[in-house]
Amino acid sequence: MTSADLGLLSAGHAGSAVAAATSDEAFLQALLDAEAALTRAWASLAGGGFHVPEQAGLWVTEAARAERFDLPSLVLRAREGGNPVIPLVADLTAAVGDRAAPYVHLGATSQDIMDTALMLVAHRALGAVLSDLARTAGALAVLAAEHRDTPMPGRTLTQHAVPTTFGLKAAGWRALALDAHDRLLAVRRSLPAQLGGAAGTMAAFSAISQAPATSAVPPGSPGPAVVEVPESSKSSQGPGGPGGSEGSAGSGSSEGSAGSGGSEGSAGSGGEPAGVGPSLVAGFARETGLAEPVLPWHVLRTPVADLGGALAFTAGALGKMAADVLVLSRTEIGEVSEAAGGGSSAMPHKSNPVRATWIAAAVRRAPALAAVLYGSLAAEDERPSGAWHAEWQTLRDLLRLVGGAARDAADLVEGLRVDRERMRANLDLTGGLIVSERLAAALTPVLGKERARALLAGASPGQGLREALEQAVGDRLALDDLLDPTHYLGSAPALVDRALRRTPGQTP
Amino acid sequence: MTSADLGLLSAGHAGSAVAAATSDEAFLQALLDAEAALTRAWASLAGGGFHVPEQAGLWVTEAARAERFDLPSLVLRAREGGNPVIPLVADLTAAVGDRAAPYVHLGATSQDIMDTALMLVAHRALGAVLSDLARTAGALAVLAAEHRDTPMPGRTLTQHAVPTTFGLKAAGWRALALDAHDRLLAVRRSLPAQLGGAAGTMAAFSAISQAPATSAVPPGSPGPAVVEVPESSKSSQGPGGPGGSEGSAGSGSSEGSAGSGGSEGSAGSGGEPAGVGPSLVAGFARETGLAEPVLPWHVLRTPVADLGGALAFTAGALGKMAADVLVLSRTEIGEVSEAAGGGSSAMPHKSNPVRATWIAAAVRRAPALAAVLYGSLAAEDERPSGAWHAEWQTLRDLLRLVGGAARDAADLVEGLRVDRERMRANLDLTGGLIVSERLAAALTPVLGKERARALLAGASPGQGLREALEQAVGDRLALDDLLDPTHYLGSAPALVDRALRRTPGQTP
Amino acid sequence: MTSADLGLLSAGHAGSAVAAATSDEAFLQALLDAEAALTRAWASLAGGGFHVPEQAGLWVTEAARAERFDLPSLVLRAREGGNPVIPLVADLTAAVGDRAAPYVHLGATSQDIMDTALMLVAHRALGAVLSDLARTAGALAVLAAEHRDTPMPGRTLTQHAVPTTFGLKAAGWRALALDAHDRLLAVRRSLPAQLGGAAGTMAAFSAISQAPATSAVPPGSPGPAVVEVPESSKSSQGPGGPGGSEGSAGSGSSEGSAGSGGSEGSAGSGGEPAGVGPSLVAGFARETGLAEPVLPWHVLRTPVADLGGALAFTAGALGKMAADVLVLSRTEIGEVSEAAGGGSSAMPHKSNPVRATWIAAAVRRAPALAAVLYGSLAAEDERPSGAWHAEWQTLRDLLRLVGGAARDAADLVEGLRVDRERMRANLDLTGGLIVSERLAAALTPVLGKERARALLAGASPGQGLREALEQAVGDRLALDDLLDPTHYLGSAPALVDRALRRTPGQTP
Amino acid sequence: MTSADLGLLSAGHAGSAVAAATSDEAFLQALLDAEAALTRAWASLAGGGFHVPEQAGLWVTEAARAERFDLPSLVLRAREGGNPVIPLVADLTAAVGDRAAPYVHLGATSQDIMDTALMLVAHRALGAVLSDLARTAGALAVLAAEHRDTPMPGRTLTQHAVPTTFGLKAAGWRALALDAHDRLLAVRRSLPAQLGGAAGTMAAFSAISQAPATSAVPPGSPGPAVVEVPESSKSSQGPGGPGGSEGSAGSGSSEGSAGSGGSEGSAGSGGEPAGVGPSLVAGFARETGLAEPVLPWHVLRTPVADLGGALAFTAGALGKMAADVLVLSRTEIGEVSEAAGGGSSAMPHKSNPVRATWIAAAVRRAPALAAVLYGSLAAEDERPSGAWHAEWQTLRDLLRLVGGAARDAADLVEGLRVDRERMRANLDLTGGLIVSERLAAALTPVLGKERARALLAGASPGQGLREALEQAVGDRLALDDLLDPTHYLGSAPALVDRALRRTPGQTP
Repeated sequence: MTSADLGLLSAGHAGSAVAAATSDEAFLQALLDAEAALTRAWASLAGGGFHVPEQAGLWVTEAARAERFDLPSLVLRAREGGNPVIPLVADLTAAVGDRAAPYVHLGATSQDIMDTALMLVAHRALGAVLSDLARTAGALAVLAAEHRDTPMPGRTLTQHAVPTTFGLKAAGWRALALDAHDRLLAVRRSLPAQLGGAAGTMAAFSAISQAPATSAVPPGSPGPAVVEVPESSKSSQGPGGPGGSEGSAGSGSSEGSAGSGGSEGSAGSGGEPAGVGPSLVAGFARETGLAEPVLPWHVLRTPVADLGGALAFTAGALGKMAADVLVLSRTEIGEVSEAAGGGSSAMPHKSNPVRATWIAAAVRRAPALAAVLYGSLAAEDERPSGAWHAEWQTLRDLLRLVGGAARDAADLVEGLRVDRERMRANLDLTGGLIVSERLAAALTPVLGKERARALLAGASPGQGLREALEQAVGDRLALDDLLDPTHYLGSAPALVDRALRRTPGQTP
Repeated sequence: MTSADLGLLSAGHAGSAVAAATSDEAFLQALLDAEAALTRAWASLAGGGFHVPEQAGLWVTEAARAERFDLPSLVLRAREGGNPVIPLVADLTAAVGDRAAPYVHLGATSQDIMDTALMLVAHRALGAVLSDLARTAGALAVLAAEHRDTPMPGRTLTQHAVPTTFGLKAAGWRALALDAHDRLLAVRRSLPAQLGGAAGTMAAFSAISQAPATSAVPPGSPGPAVVEVPESSKSSQGPGGPGGSEGSAGSGSSEGSAGSGGSEGSAGSGGEPAGVGPSLVAGFARETGLAEPVLPWHVLRTPVADLGGALAFTAGALGKMAADVLVLSRTEIGEVSEAAGGGSSAMPHKSNPVRATWIAAAVRRAPALAAVLYGSLAAEDERPSGAWHAEWQTLRDLLRLVGGAARDAADLVEGLRVDRERMRANLDLTGGLIVSERLAAALTPVLGKERARALLAGASPGQGLREALEQAVGDRLALDDLLDPTHYLGSAPALVDRALRRTPGQTP
Repeated sequence: MTSADLGLLSAGHAGSAVAAATSDEAFLQALLDAEAALTRAWASLAGGGFHVPEQAGLWVTEAARAERFDLPSLVLRAREGGNPVIPLVADLTAAVGDRAAPYVHLGATSQDIMDTALMLVAHRALGAVLSDLARTAGALAVLAAEHRDTPMPGRTLTQHAVPTTFGLKAAGWRALALDAHDRLLAVRRSLPAQLGGAAGTMAAFSAISQAPATSAVPPGSPGPAVVEVPESSKSSQGPGGPGGSEGSAGSGSSEGSAGSGGSEGSAGSGGEPAGVGPSLVAGFARETGLAEPVLPWHVLRTPVADLGGALAFTAGALGKMAADVLVLSRTEIGEVSEAAGGGSSAMPHKSNPVRATWIAAAVRRAPALAAVLYGSLAAEDERPSGAWHAEWQTLRDLLRLVGGAARDAADLVEGLRVDRERMRANLDLTGGLIVSERLAAALTPVLGKERARALLAGASPGQGLREALEQAVGDRLALDDLLDPTHYLGSAPALVDRALRRTPGQTP
Repeated sequence: MTSADLGLLSAGHAGSAVAAATSDEAFLQALLDAEAALTRAWASLAGGGFHVPEQAGLWVTEAARAERFDLPSLVLRAREGGNPVIPLVADLTAAVGDRAAPYVHLGATSQDIMDTALMLVAHRALGAVLSDLARTAGALAVLAAEHRDTPMPGRTLTQHAVPTTFGLKAAGWRALALDAHDRLLAVRRSLPAQLGGAAGTMAAFSAISQAPATSAVPPGSPGPAVVEVPESSKSSQGPGGPGGSEGSAGSGSSEGSAGSGGSEGSAGSGGEPAGVGPSLVAGFARETGLAEPVLPWHVLRTPVADLGGALAFTAGALGKMAADVLVLSRTEIGEVSEAAGGGSSAMPHKSNPVRATWIAAAVRRAPALAAVLYGSLAAEDERPSGAWHAEWQTLRDLLRLVGGAARDAADLVEGLRVDRERMRANLDLTGGLIVSERLAAALTPVLGKERARALLAGASPGQGLREALEQAVGDRLALDDLLDPTHYLGSAPALVDRALRRTPGQTP
């Protein structure tokens, strides 16, 4: 019996783009992408005693294909060593052959590769999430416009309050979807590469680069000049780049890099050379397509905490819509229904709001996971024992939950059935009391506040209310108008218009 | 690229018994075990109009092997329908053939099968956890006895406080391990089967059982009497029983069943028949090896919440030991070390406390997961939209985290190296101030409280302290004795003895 | 502007017994109770060189009244020193006067007093919680019996599923209330006193007790023999005892004390004396009314974690009922309503389910708080920097949330209005589909499974369904009976009977 | 015994500016400020049938002083009604007298006032937090510059790894403090006023404004023209404005108001009037000093979730520093110490890292609280039963925790003692192995990778290592230089320079 998971217990994200982007194999590929980018970054460094041949980047990039590695073995060895990079470096070094072996993982620490891979995976997964959020917002814009004036009961504390419109409700859902979209977009653009060496001082990079040029070539190596490198592969982003449909990689790599310009060898203001580290990091960020960090962030976990917060926000934002859909889908309410509900193993007639259910499950789980990531900010030393390790699976789980929820949200909205008649009928359930606020406003000038409230609190709904009103005010008030719930929508339609002026990415 | 997970990002439990017991395939087997147990339970019912042939239980049990089912397809269809049982029932019905098809999933709801499978998986996984906790407690008993009198610095708020013994520390770790063991053991014994039908009223069971005896046989069926049933298979626990080394299944099934005795067909005090439901549940519990519930617990989630609490407790209990090992392993302290530490991809000399690190990571994650399970107690209706679904993966994650942590704890303790010399040397680091409490107690009768405190707060550690004492009290006090930190162990050794009298399972 | 809180933002527990039992002043009293109990415990020790006069216990007990102390000053000084005990000992020592000053806080560490006070406060607060849970369970028993046979729609995933009875729902709520009651009761009985000295070795107790009898008396002290001690005060529990209506204090003090018998001076099996510590702890536990611990538990936080789990469980258990009440109170459903709902500042007609709302808010907060307590199990050293401090307010918040929720639950249930007519009317909303499961069971023998499902999935609800049935099966089935939702209650009434056989405290 | 809290159990924030800004009385004042701002906003509306006299705003503002209200009574009535606004409106209406009573709480719902007050309190409290974060960052800049080149051991997974500098560590702490500062600043600027009426449609505002001008004046009222309004009070921000030292209130009110320009009476694109609502909200936001929202956000809880995330981030960011200080303060390490540590009730010699401890406690609590706020995003209907209520105290707790932590962080850093000698001495503890990475880099070209690693893994530290190196490489390498840990700082100093170029508010 294998111990592989396919998502049987968390099927909400099964088969999604995010599920594929966050699998063990996808993560292994991201680790390999990071290693290959590192060798390419070394090769792109100008000058220095030690030189990594351009071909080395090519060799490592070619070898760095996840399907060639023994994932189960890596997992078991990861347990022994504390993370998967240690065994992976051994396997990759063997895979590239003698000629490239000296150029693998040069000066890096395990965390450099793990963190970069985490960011690559997050970057890739968020591409799909953003796309689904934009799809959700788009479909909600249509719904909001279509139902701008569709009256329905506004409900507070489970009770009918005053009328609202379904368009305003949909516009609110959309506002949250856009808030989520914009937060995730901003975080995604800032995701940095990680490269600091053993304790974040970049010391090994200088130590290596100061060695004599020939020294890193092992005995018997065919030497660095043998292989032809196709022009297209030179220092370009390899297959492991974060990609992303909106091409943010390019702009991303310049985010957060204040002060990094011209840092090669001269970042120290005290006249001391900064070493090769900063240049190497700049090149590494370029090769990975991630942002260049100001400092190594082994224990400055802002990127991970920001991801946690934005992902929990997204789950919650979609969770609001799901909560409403679940209420409005109730048998007794029936104002909306999912296009194709889930079935039942026992009851032939049932059609369940299955997408809203998956989203509701996600919003119960995501905040707790984000809390773990916020807690891991308190990471002692230059690498902590536990706080870092707790992030990996937690971040993946969050990406998956939100990836599934975003897909479900888009599907849900695109297929949502809205029942105007049920909405209209439900408005009458309280026999006019749903406009008691309006009646109070109208009666107060006539009867005074106390008598107005007493009349409204005491009247029996429906005909009784109307009769009490007639008796009290006669024809001084237009009761037909006053009692019509569809005439008491306030600014709801106008608010829909206002809300629809916002576009994705507009408000970061 | 597949989306299967093997644990690359949560390798702490990789390769463990719990990892195997909680895999998708293991869970699928548990679902199948539940279905087979249900058919067997039906077959074991005496009397009634509708009769399930004994062979049907055999047929379903034979067909219910996880490896014969298409797991990836089930996962995808689980997403559509809201849970994996709906497609599984379809596949299982097809797999058993026409003759047994009518006897699959009779009267059950998806949640009956899911919850029973969750309990089966938890029961099996906890067997391994309990075993590792007992192993941990055993090794700690040896350590505590061996180091009953080994002095070391007691530390509070990061500072040396007064001496203690390593035996007392190990005895404390053991007390927590036993607390965890006993809590998990009690919860495991109470894990109930689930069988209530669509809304927990067991109505379908009666409806089915009241149909005419021949009616459930589909046209063309070979009929119920054809197959010979080996005696050993009759109503016995199938391959899907929870098993467990201590044979608690038998006793387990009588837990929590207060009032269920003699309930067959007559549970109603009002003279109405209770229907076949209670008898069927009793049989189902017996077939699964789980406890018989008093009520269907579709929305009475005590078993899941109890699991969550006990598992979070276990993670925390082991986390105390891990936190101490991480402190005591520090380069500057060096009082303990793991037998075989994790390596480094960058620094040849390093030996990291890798097991303690995995445990520390688990304790950062487990409480948040338990919080999700406690939150899911608030499950609306007869089946909630989200609260239930949020439990599945969360419970599995908890089992895995704790399974990995328990294994790591046992391995850690069994191989822990204790450095008595470093402990003794560290006792001298404060130059005598580690016994300042004792000195205060001894000086106060001689000098009065204020002068005693002033002397101790003002003296420079080491020789200065001794000289100040000699000057203040001359030979009225035995300074050699007073200043020797190994002579100020208080009741530590006696407390070790007391603690070691406790055995696993003694205090629930 | 003062910084005092009265509960404006968490009014759910305002004015409750638990609010009073957990106030700053109540906690200050508990700290003082612990100090007084310590002096009394010293006075009750037989023999030894150092002797604390019986009067000292009386003096300290008399002085230890919270209203005499400057709470705001203590709070500010607590911040400086890291906990409130340090300044309190200074103030108490001053308050007792010279004659008793030497007998205050003898050999104790701050944590001894803080932890004991936490347990005292928890013990007292839980008394009220248990009482409210018993009240809740009692009122639910009445409701369950009264509505044993009252049919209502069973709802799953927001949709009508099959009928159930309100009695079964109430019986389920009661089962959870009893689960909570029994868990809290067990935890309450096990709450231990804390007394270990600076690092949990009890070393100071021996050091102090070995001093000459007269030595602790400060110059100018009137001496230990002057004051007459009334017989009633001798070693009796002072005003700070946990009290509690069910008199568990006596039995409580023997809980968890395995192996403590006859431990005075001889707990060491190795022939060494255990010192005075164990005897003192036994006496201290007796004086406080708390259980005697096997080991000092400064960093073995089982009692706090157990409290966290049981309290989160209780919030969730009551949260299930609140979730149901909120659903059933909806304007469109209207099956239950709170006796006196909350009003609205805007809408005269509204009556909100305010008690269920407070409970629902509590269940959103409690699990996260429990997670903090579980996390604090990982407490490094002999006293941790942060893990311990994080417990104090968190535990208090949990007690308050649960205290408020338990009171609200009892009030809610005692006044709950149940609308049988709405329940009955709602059963008809699906036009017969609510018994589709039953129809499927009845039709399958007649039509075969596939045709039966097709008929049920295709028929339009109401008259259409009936006509389709008549056409398909003619008079072979008793359609009036089959279609009556009140005739498909399954074992619901019998399950109510079974559930009501359980009593509080029966199942721990 | 009162039930007031002063912070005895959470003294970390006792006496702080944030404690004062978040007290019950402060919150009551904020509620009153919101009510007064509402009346002033009504008075500032031009035109319309119904007119609120300018004096009314003055009258209400004058009456709206927290100290005049009966806080304990409000708390108890808040419990009955579900929130404190309902009784407060009654008391305020009574307090303003007949002439102003008609102008209190006009058209608002409780949540309008509660949410606005929450934002006001958050805005005020964050002013102090931001100030303390800026102070922290400033002091860290000094420390980082001063110790730019101060070597100390870099530690990973508790073990010495390679050297770093204390300046780089301080620069990292500062980067996190700035990240926190900038996130909180951005959130603070976006905090919106809340004004939507009963269900967020603003319907009541129009209903009221359409009544005849004289109608709202109760019988016997002196009428709207009697009182002279001082010019300075006209539509200006009252005493309840958020204030704040950096004067962000003005800019704040224009944040988030995209599309609100020119919305008065004509926001509807469909030609329908938007009603008076949008104009009133704009005026209300101006009067409160908060941002104007695009939509009522009763159930669009972005502001609260954003606060939760940024506050949890801040706690974690400071928690990193605290975690490091706790490690480096250990008796065995001794590299830093707090200026004035906490004392001990038992041990005269102790000086505890008390500020770091309070911060560490805060970081254990804050993420769980933020999780509650993220969870409350899933707020059903137009006002949820529970999700909203769970926010109030949770947000306050978060503000307090972070307020205390920020003050402690600033105090800690400003007084931190750094012991260069201990840092230097600790670098030698591994006998040269702390530069094993450098040695490997230097040896590999000479010996090959495998032999180099074998030599380093096998050599005994100290003299043994040096001799092994001399034997292997003779004088081919400059061993004095290679083995000197202060010569292997990599880019640490240069990274400090780079990091110090960042200023607060620069990177949002």
